[in-house]
Amino acid sequence: MNNKERLVVIGGVAAGMSAASSFKRIKPDAEVIVLEKDYFISYGACSLPYYISDDVKDFNNLISLTPKVATERGITVFLRHEVLSIDPMKKEVHVKDLEKDEKKVIPYDKLVIATGGLPIKPPLPGIELEHIFTIRTLVDGIEIKKFIDQWTTFDVCLGPMCTYRNRFGAEKRTMKALIVGGGYIGMEMSESLKKRGLDVTVIEKMDRVLGNMDASIADIAEEKIQSEGVKLYKGVSVEGFEGENRVVTKVLTDHGPHEADLVLLVIGARANTKMAREAGVEVSANGAIKVDDHLRTNIPDIFAAGDCAEATQLVTGKKVYIPLGTTANKQGRIAGENAAGMDHTFEGIVGTAVTKIFDLEVARTGLSPIEADHEGYKYFISTIQGKSRSSAYPAGKPMTISYVVEEESGRLLGAQMAGIEGVAHRIDTLATCLYNKMTVEDVARLDLGYAPPFATVWDPILIAANVALKKLKKTE
Amino acid sequence: MNNKERLVVIGGVAAGMSAASSFKRIKPDAEVIVLEKDYFISYGACSLPYYISDDVKDFNNLISLTPKVATERGITVFLRHEVLSIDPMKKEVHVKDLEKDEKKVIPYDKLVIATGGLPIKPPLPGIELEHIFTIRTLVDGIEIKKFIDQWTTFDVCLGPMCTYRNRFGAEKRTMKALIVGGGYIGMEMSESLKKRGLDVTVIEKMDRVLGNMDASIADIAEEKIQSEGVKLYKGVSVEGFEGENRVVTKVLTDHGPHEADLVLLVIGARANTKMAREAGVEVSANGAIKVDDHLRTNIPDIFAAGDCAEATQLVTGKKVYIPLGTTANKQGRIAGENAAGMDHTFEGIVGTAVTKIFDLEVARTGLSPIEADHEGYKYFISTIQGKSRSSAYPAGKPMTISYVVEEESGRLLGAQMAGIEGVAHRIDTLATCLYNKMTVEDVARLDLGYAPPFATVWDPILIAANVALKKLKKTE
Repeated sequence: MNNKERLVVIGGVAAGMSAASSFKRIKPDAEVIVLEKDYFISYGACSLPYYISDDVKDFNNLISLTPKVATERGITVFLRHEVLSIDPMKKEVHVKDLEKDEKKVIPYDKLVIATGGLPIKPPLPGIELEHIFTIRTLVDGIEIKKFIDQWTTFDVCLGPMCTYRNRFGAEKRTMKALIVGGGYIGMEMSESLKKRGLDVTVIEKMDRVLGNMDASIADIAEEKIQSEGVKLYKGVSVEGFEGENRVVTKVLTDHGPHEADLVLLVIGARANTKMAREAGVEVSANGAIKVDDHLRTNIPDIFAAGDCAEATQLVTGKKVYIPLGTTANKQGRIAGENAAGMDHTFEGIVGTAVTKIFDLEVARTGLSPIEADHEGYKYFISTIQGKSRSSAYPAGKPMTISYVVEEESGRLLGAQMAGIEGVAHRIDTLATCLYNKMTVEDVARLDLGYAPPFATVWDPILIAANVALKKLKKTE
Repeated sequence: MNNKERLVVIGGVAAGMSAASSFKRIKPDAEVIVLEKDYFISYGACSLPYYISDDVKDFNNLISLTPKVATERGITVFLRHEVLSIDPMKKEVHVKDLEKDEKKVIPYDKLVIATGGLPIKPPLPGIELEHIFTIRTLVDGIEIKKFIDQWTTFDVCLGPMCTYRNRFGAEKRTMKALIVGGGYIGMEMSESLKKRGLDVTVIEKMDRVLGNMDASIADIAEEKIQSEGVKLYKGVSVEGFEGENRVVTKVLTDHGPHEADLVLLVIGARANTKMAREAGVEVSANGAIKVDDHLRTNIPDIFAAGDCAEATQLVTGKKVYIPLGTTANKQGRIAGENAAGMDHTFEGIVGTAVTKIFDLEVARTGLSPIEADHEGYKYFISTIQGKSRSSAYPAGKPMTISYVVEEESGRLLGAQMAGIEGVAHRIDTLATCLYNKMTVEDVARLDLGYAPPFATVWDPILIAANVALKKLKKTE
């Protein structure tokens, strides 16, 4: 090892590459090594549904930074290098080159753990069968798309009076996709697979889709996917899988079996922390690596960022695990800056998320009613129907907005929305309200833009605030 | 007069009808009289460009509340009743019924002045010619549309080898429209008239369109209207009008004449305060009625709201005159509530406005660079190019964002944006930042939503904040 200061980053996707880049910007003469277990770095996993749907043809479009460009910027990237362990005393990581099957020891001055999240894959009977996918990495996306492409593209004729068969030996027919889990990714993938012409079924364990969204919003999403031909079964638990020739053919549930050629397990993610824990890095009850507002772990010179780390929910002030690309990028950048000697803080998140489900926009920020319950808030829910455009202007669309409001104080705790247009960016206004701990009375005072093609003269955000305010005054 | 408490409202459009309605809600047994000089009440003047363009066929769609429905709600509406004077000592208004040419005296307990704004119409030679329009009231819109309809619809053949002529006697040819003033309404009307197939020219006195917007944004609007075939002349002053048979045919400027069949004067508005001033109601230097945060004027029991009144610009803390429908509705509601004995405040505005110019969205909030100069702020401008969607997701559009940032403090003073999509609602997030007096460092911390169809993983708002932050640190 030379005398240059060295940052080692474990994991080369959003948080890891952000950390590597920000460190290098501040210390251009230092050495930066990124160790990535997989084949790719720096890709936008949120775009995988649109790659699989073929809206994005080439997976290279999902990649922001190739190892070549990273190298040109002075960041050394080792692909297919798995970190086996961290030795915080000696300040070195033990690495396995998966291609060459060789072990190496790499010393570090500063270490950023950005090992991301792992898809939850319950140990059900038959879980090892082929064509049961999770979707988290670019490789997952490539494999799912390849499978669909092969099913739909390659025909094999079996004789003069042939029945066409695809290369999997099945008679050519519509592929049956079964999505286990009705969260954001399950909803997005139901659109993605439907676009590919698949017969799509979603199975959700809970009584609604979109996790703990308010029913007023979840109902709209359910109606949307069903109107697009997706079958939805709620309150149904998967108990196992059956297959033929090592390939899945059936999903077994507590309400009977479903035929399936492709199974997608999208029931959530957990922080990938095994190696960190073994090195003595503390992990929270939420399963993610404990970090302070400088993204420091409990061990000196070791930082953590992204889907393996926790963040402060600014509404409650408590640490939470909400793995999202936006947070990973921000945390990664600040972890890298602080590893390079800066003194930057990552205050936290308010839990903003947005998704497109066919032509429906669904968004949330802050606490859902279930979360507000869980945190012991006294709150009420106030839901309104607004419109995306002036009633005079043609083609306005209805929009549902639901606020979670603390009783007595009137503080906005959370907001959820669904509608065909004007939802995706309106949620950001409410996220800004939460950041500033505004009451619904404050929200009602906002000077929001108005023009007939974009809003009603009382913006739906203001109407919702005024309605909530009225309810609040009645409870006073 | 009976013994019931009586509210009199002068002016029945946005502020006036809001005041009448909110007063009646609180005091259902009191009497509410609305005096409207014109033929219509309670219409959305912001939709007039879309009525003229024929996107909205029927002007009744612009009306929220008819006199009939208002009456059913216990609000007495007198159309075509002009208030000639207010007697604050006797607490009565002197009114002229314009239809019957009769005078009346109406006593009040509380009075709300909502006389709105008047279009600026300079006393240039020929200004009295026909087919020179302003656009402020529904009647203005109806007249402009009728003129265009008649020009384009009615053909008169003048003999066997006829040349078709329209009913104005002109040979059938494309109508030439000349818009004087390149502000929001001028831009919207250029689209509106172009949609009707007119030959459209805009003449602007200043060096840019959209008033005091930053050049980086105004340039985009200029390119847009020109690419749509609108002719634009900047730095040109109108000096008068020429006509034939009392009808305008030419607009004279300091750069030569322009032929015109229709002239639209959209060079701004001023508060309509003559009658209020004559009654002793104080008016600010900005020309609008002075009001406190309860919308009270200097005279007891007289309130003012809407386009005749001023408002506090929360960024500077100073009173300004920015007549907009959103403010008129809010002020009207609160004036009515306070007239009914409530104790509500109208804090103020941050100067948010949004407009659609063909398929371009343009928006602003807070101070423009010129306004920041005028207020004596030390500031810098930071402009970025963002994208409306993830680079992986198809059909993303460029978006320009320009921040006005105070030196040293880093406080956001204003923001302006232009782009084909994702602009109209993003401005509301920045308006919320201004309301909370956030610095660009605060803005960069916001937890904004991300999904590939709606944003980049670093939202353009955050990219702009980070770039501004870098500039700020360099100036420190």
